[in-house]
Amino acid sequence: MQVVITAVGPDNRGLADPIVHSVTRLGANIAEIQMYDHDAERVFSMLTRVELGVERYEELCNAMAEVARRTKLSIRTWTPDIVGRRPRLAICVTYRPEPALALLRGIRDGAMKAEPRLMIGNREACHSLAEQFDIPWFNIGKDGGKPDDDRLIELCDEHEVDFIVLARYMRILPAASCWKYAGGRIINLHHGLLPSFPGMKPYHDAYAARMLTYGCTCHFIVPELDAGNQIIYQSTFLVPPGMPLEEIIHRGQTDNEPHCLVEGVRRVVEGDVRMHFNRVVVGKG
Amino acid sequence: MQVVITAVGPDNRGLADPIVHSVTRLGANIAEIQMYDHDAERVFSMLTRVELGVERYEELCNAMAEVARRTKLSIRTWTPDIVGRRPRLAICVTYRPEPALALLRGIRDGAMKAEPRLMIGNREACHSLAEQFDIPWFNIGKDGGKPDDDRLIELCDEHEVDFIVLARYMRILPAASCWKYAGGRIINLHHGLLPSFPGMKPYHDAYAARMLTYGCTCHFIVPELDAGNQIIYQSTFLVPPGMPLEEIIHRGQTDNEPHCLVEGVRRVVEGDVRMHFNRVVVGKG
Amino acid sequence: MQVVITAVGPDNRGLADPIVHSVTRLGANIAEIQMYDHDAERVFSMLTRVELGVERYEELCNAMAEVARRTKLSIRTWTPDIVGRRPRLAICVTYRPEPALALLRGIRDGAMKAEPRLMIGNREACHSLAEQFDIPWFNIGKDGGKPDDDRLIELCDEHEVDFIVLARYMRILPAASCWKYAGGRIINLHHGLLPSFPGMKPYHDAYAARMLTYGCTCHFIVPELDAGNQIIYQSTFLVPPGMPLEEIIHRGQTDNEPHCLVEGVRRVVEGDVRMHFNRVVVGKG
Amino acid sequence: MQVVITAVGPDNRGLADPIVHSVTRLGANIAEIQMYDHDAERVFSMLTRVELGVERYEELCNAMAEVARRTKLSIRTWTPDIVGRRPRLAICVTYRPEPALALLRGIRDGAMKAEPRLMIGNREACHSLAEQFDIPWFNIGKDGGKPDDDRLIELCDEHEVDFIVLARYMRILPAASCWKYAGGRIINLHHGLLPSFPGMKPYHDAYAARMLTYGCTCHFIVPELDAGNQIIYQSTFLVPPGMPLEEIIHRGQTDNEPHCLVEGVRRVVEGDVRMHFNRVVVGKG
Repeated sequence: MQVVITAVGPDNRGLADPIVHSVTRLGANIAEIQMYDHDAERVFSMLTRVELGVERYEELCNAMAEVARRTKLSIRTWTPDIVGRRPRLAICVTYRPEPALALLRGIRDGAMKAEPRLMIGNREACHSLAEQFDIPWFNIGKDGGKPDDDRLIELCDEHEVDFIVLARYMRILPAASCWKYAGGRIINLHHGLLPSFPGMKPYHDAYAARMLTYGCTCHFIVPELDAGNQIIYQSTFLVPPGMPLEEIIHRGQTDNEPHCLVEGVRRVVEGDVRMHFNRVVVGKG
Repeated sequence: MQVVITAVGPDNRGLADPIVHSVTRLGANIAEIQMYDHDAERVFSMLTRVELGVERYEELCNAMAEVARRTKLSIRTWTPDIVGRRPRLAICVTYRPEPALALLRGIRDGAMKAEPRLMIGNREACHSLAEQFDIPWFNIGKDGGKPDDDRLIELCDEHEVDFIVLARYMRILPAASCWKYAGGRIINLHHGLLPSFPGMKPYHDAYAARMLTYGCTCHFIVPELDAGNQIIYQSTFLVPPGMPLEEIIHRGQTDNEPHCLVEGVRRVVEGDVRMHFNRVVVGKG
Repeated sequence: MQVVITAVGPDNRGLADPIVHSVTRLGANIAEIQMYDHDAERVFSMLTRVELGVERYEELCNAMAEVARRTKLSIRTWTPDIVGRRPRLAICVTYRPEPALALLRGIRDGAMKAEPRLMIGNREACHSLAEQFDIPWFNIGKDGGKPDDDRLIELCDEHEVDFIVLARYMRILPAASCWKYAGGRIINLHHGLLPSFPGMKPYHDAYAARMLTYGCTCHFIVPELDAGNQIIYQSTFLVPPGMPLEEIIHRGQTDNEPHCLVEGVRRVVEGDVRMHFNRVVVGKG
Repeated sequence: MQVVITAVGPDNRGLADPIVHSVTRLGANIAEIQMYDHDAERVFSMLTRVELGVERYEELCNAMAEVARRTKLSIRTWTPDIVGRRPRLAICVTYRPEPALALLRGIRDGAMKAEPRLMIGNREACHSLAEQFDIPWFNIGKDGGKPDDDRLIELCDEHEVDFIVLARYMRILPAASCWKYAGGRIINLHHGLLPSFPGMKPYHDAYAARMLTYGCTCHFIVPELDAGNQIIYQSTFLVPPGMPLEEIIHRGQTDNEPHCLVEGVRRVVEGDVRMHFNRVVVGKG
């Protein structure tokens, strides 16, 4: 079975050794290691992907918990080989409800097998949506929507979430958060076609470039790497010359974005795609 | 009626005055003037768009012919208000026959009203296509496909062409040629999504960027300006992760590109769109 | 002598005709015409550059004033062939005083011949600098520094300014203002190397790209065109690896930017460079 | 002491385990691991940076040689802590001799301590330069200059080279070669300012962008990463408007590029800078 171990700590001394030793002692084969050092933010992290016999998974989890206790590193052990239950999602939102709504409907109607475990917002705008589908709601936003980034991760940990879905969540996850759920567990919906329109206002940028094609992109988030390279799914729509920007945005938000997120999340939870050395590859699904 | 006058000459002295004087004397209202000076290539040019009573169009044509005789400038007078006949097309090709074929079939089957007046190639690859549809064929390519650019314009002049369609014609028109048919008369099919993938190998570039959306772009050519800003039509197709490049190219070339060119040319010949101050705007069509 | 006429109006009907007629009637030779139509902002404008005998300059000015009266167009007539007086500058500032200070010192100390006619700020930060050099000061900023763009142009008109110098003026001039002083009369100091670092935070962007070269760019502003193409002067400085961003910014602001602006303005006011068909060329100076 | 181990093999099974085990067994502390998988080219590689007591360095080298023998991986062990001898350089060239010449003179005249161990060319153009300085010369170019990439690495191995200097070597090293000498051992001179002008013709591109600043960049090569982020040194020169391209290129090639390479190589061989998690940081030097 495949296991992903992520470790984040305040410096790079002693980050790799204890994990590598434990993994090696349990007879796991190392398939991939990525390390990252961002001095400026004091974020040092490591992703370790190993192959291990199923029967030793729990032992590995315990060993990693023990390392975490001893070293004060923030360590997470997770396997993408989910058996006997549905993948658990944390759905993160800000203002726009449409993509999250489409995802919740898609799950309800059997378009994919997944469990929307909780919804997290930095604004109240989508609170009623959580109520409508009877899903626990957590507002991590403080004054002006500033999110409590640590609380987001805590909530995901507590709810034993498999995948974090950013459904038009309009804040940037800090690198430390991304590393804690590294390995293809954070799915973002960007409301523009990547790599062309990466900014905060992709509809406006595409309109300024007088495009007649608009689109959006569902992708994994990998810190330090250009998002355009971890594309899970993209969908587009064409507009005739002269269509006002407001109408284009409306079409995108109410139709194209929801469709894109649903298909993107489906590809991940059903194992159609997975991360492999910072690339999206065809899964075993 | 709207009239477009283009003038190209070897320097910028005396380029504007004789045309402006004639136009003014005939009572035309000047709607737009664009001038361009490219020292390095000794191409000086002017686009003049005027409004004129229909009854004076011939007089204007004659006056411009007279100016051309006197000044040795290369001058063309043309009106987009085509009455009593079908818009005449020159279809330029190199290797790929699919877009030209789709265009010829579309015209034959009534998808748009247009007359394919001649086909121009810099290679022989599409000669048989011209024969099949019984259209005059001209090969302007010399050794290695190097095109005789002046001959291309001569042929279009002789055949009184309204629009030049570059249907995967793989050579770059020199600035002087573009200016001679300026004002929204040169339609290009680029086999990638603009503005993201402008180069000579857009399929390869998009593949390297690990895109899951591919597309092509039908646009007017305006010298000195970024092609992305004169988009007539774009069409896209989605691919699943892992599809080999060869298969993507095959889909693009056999399906998406032909469709894009047909709809793009239709929009122009039926007046759905037109050029207005270097922008594509909704036509009166 | 060379004369530049700019005209700005609310639509493109009747913009070109009256100016072209007047210019033609006075026997001027048209050297360049550029027209621009920005529907969205209802800005239609025309730049006309003509050659004319010196003795008829005043007549042309009067004719243009007459056209302006009749048509309600906003018309300006100006010649770069300044004789018998020093070129007059409007120096526009926001927070940073260093570039303006260096320019004022340079003029005082004879590095170039120019007259700093007035200073315009959208903040009070440089008010004392104007006092120190005894130059009329105008604050056009309202709440939060929002500038009164029309007032800026009015002030330049009233003071018969030749060149508007944006000396770390942190607001974007609207297209209408740029067109009113088109033809190489607006000089901007951008605090990053163009075309690489065009944004609002070029030091930060270059630092994020881990550059070891920093620079700034003095350029003409031409609406609709990429600023990188109208470069008057650039200057750079090298930094060793590991230099903190704050120190880099300090070096740039206190040394490199002031130097760049002084040399850039000198090149313009002494006629070393000038605009010609949207390009910077070597002047006759 | 710091030790860099690189391993390259045909698949990712069994790439990490034997190295990690050996390193761990010898009591080395793992400071950094980077793995890379490029399916398409069947290049799988790993960079391991460890801290180790000096007295165990030879033991580590032997252990790695043993792993290489057993696994058929291509493994290299190297330490940047060079003691008792000068750093050995392989200087790779194609046509332009100036940068290599400046480097050889700089070493001869004591500007830095280094040993030019061999020169490698894919053309004969710089053969006489090697003769002049009495350095072994190897031409790895076949018909049309096509280089024997494997031979280049073999030569560097045989000559126990510390650093490979690409002194206007005009071919791209394959990813496998770059990984074999990963860890800050390949120094490239790019004849344009990065990140702005990355292409094969940076002088022409900067000229087309009408830049008045030209420059070049000395940087480490890291496969898969944007070269702009591993800058060792950059140098620039300013040109007045109107300077012909040929003169700009001449200045760049004869003055700026040689200077840039000399200072860049000096910074590396004297330990002013080093690679650390894919970034250039200040060395302990």
